Amino acid sequence: MSDATSGDLRRFDRIILGIDPGTNVMGYGVLGITGKTPQLIVMGVLKLNAMETHYLRLKRIYDRVVSLCVQYLPDELAIEAPFFGKNVQSMLKLGRAQGVAMAAALSRDVPISEYAPLKIKQAVTGSGSASKERVANMLKYILKIPEERMPHLLDATDALAAALAHFYESGKPAIAKGGNSWERFLKDHPERIAPRRK
Amino acid sequence: MSDATSGDLRRFDRIILGIDPGTNVMGYGVLGITGKTPQLIVMGVLKLNAMETHYLRLKRIYDRVVSLCVQYLPDELAIEAPFFGKNVQSMLKLGRAQGVAMAAALSRDVPISEYAPLKIKQAVTGSGSASKERVANMLKYILKIPEERMPHLLDATDALAAALAHFYESGKPAIAKGGNSWERFLKDHPERIAPRRK
Repeated sequence: MSDATSGDLRRFDRIILGIDPGTNVMGYGVLGITGKTPQLIVMGVLKLNAMETHYLRLKRIYDRVVSLCVQYLPDELAIEAPFFGKNVQSMLKLGRAQGVAMAAALSRDVPISEYAPLKIKQAVTGSGSASKERVANMLKYILKIPEERMPHLLDATDALAAALAHFYESGKPAIAKGGNSWERFLKDHPERIAPRRK
Repeated sequence: MSDATSGDLRRFDRIILGIDPGTNVMGYGVLGITGKTPQLIVMGVLKLNAMETHYLRLKRIYDRVVSLCVQYLPDELAIEAPFFGKNVQSMLKLGRAQGVAMAAALSRDVPISEYAPLKIKQAVTGSGSASKERVANMLKYILKIPEERMPHLLDATDALAAALAHFYESGKPAIAKGGNSWERFLKDHPERIAPRRK
C-alpha cells in the first residue's frame, strides 16, 4: 500500500485516523479531508500473533497507534466500538484492546469519537445491516480507490469506514446528531428563558 | 501521605507498583523490597469525577500511571484484575480502564502481572473471602505501617495488596506456582530425555 509522505499531509484541512481494534487483528485507515472531499491516505492491518502473550499484543497495538499518530498527525481518532459481545470475558479483552489504542491517542492529545458498527455501516452504505464486502465496495466507490489499493483483509476497510462515518457525523448540526446544543435550544425556545431577577 | 524521594529509592533491590483500576477510583501502592523485606513507599487513590467524560477519565488514569512510573521507577506492575463482572457493559468499561493503565506501564517497558481479587486476598490474609478491612489490617501488620499513614479509601490498600501478593507469588518456585519450568522438569526427570541421535 502506498503511503503519503509527511510533506503531502499539509495539503489536507483535516486528517482522521480510523481504528477497528480487535484482539487478533487491528485495522486502521487514514482519511485526509480537503474542503468537503475525503480522500484515502493509507489503510492496513496489524496482525496479532496467537503465539504472543496478551501483554505483547496490547503493547503492539499501543505502539502501532502511537506510530500512526506520529506519521500521519491525525486531528481526530474515530474508533469502531461494539457495545455488545458474546460474554464478559471477550468484552474485557476487547475493552483492553480499545483501552490501549485510546491511551495511545490520548497520550498524543488526539480527541476520540467512537461509533457502533451498525452506525458506521448506516453512515457509509445507508444500511445498518450491510456486509463488510458492501462497506468495502462503497468506500472504493466514494473515495475512488483504485483496485490495487484495496486490502485483502476487511478489518482495514472497516477502520477506514469508521473514519468516513466520523467525517459525515461531525459535519451534521448538533441537533440532528442527537447531541444537546444548549445555545441552539435557547435560540429556538426564547419563551423558556426565565427573566433575570433584579 | 509521605513520599520517598527518588534518592531514597536506590536503597531498594526491587520496586513493585500495585494498581487497582476502576472506572470511579483507581488505587495505587508502591512497595520497596530490600532482601526479603517488603516496605511501603507510598499509597493513594486517584478519584475520577462522575462529571468528567469517559475519555478524560481514561486519560487521567493513563497520566497518573505514567507519572507513578516516572517518580518511583517500578521494576514490575501488579494489577488487580477481576475476571467476572456484572455485565458486558461494565466489563468493557473495566477493560478500558485496565487497558490504559497497562498501556502506561508498557510504554515505560514495565512488565505486568495480573491477579484475581480472590488470589490477592488469599496471598495476603490466607483467606480468599477476607474483607477489604481485613486486607488493610494485615497490610498494616505485615508492613508495620503507622496508623497515620493508613488511607481512608480501601482502594489504596487493595492496590498495595496486589503489589504484596505479586512479591509473594514471584518468590515461589515455578512448579509451585503452577507454571511450567521445562528446565526444572528435565532436571527432575533425566530419564525422560531421549539420547541425541548421531
